[in-house]
Amino acid sequence: MKKKLLAASLALAFGVGSGYVVNTFAQAKPEVLVKQRQAAMTLIGKYWGPLGAMASGKAPYNAEVVARNAVYLDALTQMPWDGFAADTKDTAEKTRALPAVFTDTAKFKEGQDRLRGAVTKLVAASKGGEDAFKAAAGEVGKACAACHENFRAK
Amino acid sequence: MKKKLLAASLALAFGVGSGYVVNTFAQAKPEVLVKQRQAAMTLIGKYWGPLGAMASGKAPYNAEVVARNAVYLDALTQMPWDGFAADTKDTAEKTRALPAVFTDTAKFKEGQDRLRGAVTKLVAASKGGEDAFKAAAGEVGKACAACHENFRAK
Repeated sequence: MKKKLLAASLALAFGVGSGYVVNTFAQAKPEVLVKQRQAAMTLIGKYWGPLGAMASGKAPYNAEVVARNAVYLDALTQMPWDGFAADTKDTAEKTRALPAVFTDTAKFKEGQDRLRGAVTKLVAASKGGEDAFKAAAGEVGKACAACHENFRAK
Repeated sequence: MKKKLLAASLALAFGVGSGYVVNTFAQAKPEVLVKQRQAAMTLIGKYWGPLGAMASGKAPYNAEVVARNAVYLDALTQMPWDGFAADTKDTAEKTRALPAVFTDTAKFKEGQDRLRGAVTKLVAASKGGEDAFKAAAGEVGKACAACHENFRAK
């Protein structure tokens, strides 16, 4: 119980939400956390890719793909964050996470929240036709880019 | 358009569902497909792990974690399959996929459907208390194991 409270406190301290508790629960090692957060980013790329192409006019709008991928992204964009736990800071794994992830945790959390807000709107917009989709997708793209700019190595 | 029809035909032929179309859309290379399907499996492991521990009595039942992870698994268990496209058969990537994935495609599809059915029931059961959860989780565990037994190297 003490351990659980500690995990909850750490989660609040690092602003990474309840997912942190689950990982403490599973006692995941830093290298596992890095692998899991990279897996989430890989899949966000997989399902964002076609939407980004549609939003920028490089691919034709496909309402079915938009609706499906938006739902997937709604789940996936909740998954990376507990993987940036403090004990992954000095991992030997290859990672593009910049030190700012661990030093500017408030701003990093803001970036996560911005993405989550944009994806929530994307899910709603995915039922509203091409124009609504493009507007919402634009905000998702900006949220990705802003966070990568500050927290991911080039 | 011809390309899209071809992709749809291939998707039917290999029984991998509409996700295949999306990947053809993005023209993902075999090594990317392997990375993406492994990412999905990694995350299924992340969110199944705590549920498996609860189902087998190794961890205390936590309704909040069950509900959240069931929803995540509902999305994640739809994601690996289009990554087993025929052109990944001879990939240089390190993979535990057995040749049967590409030769016994009907049985592989059956395994996917079994998992999907079990996870759908898990999502419903996640609102029904500990006993309902344990019964549903048992079926998910069996679906994982059966498919790994036949299609994944030890």
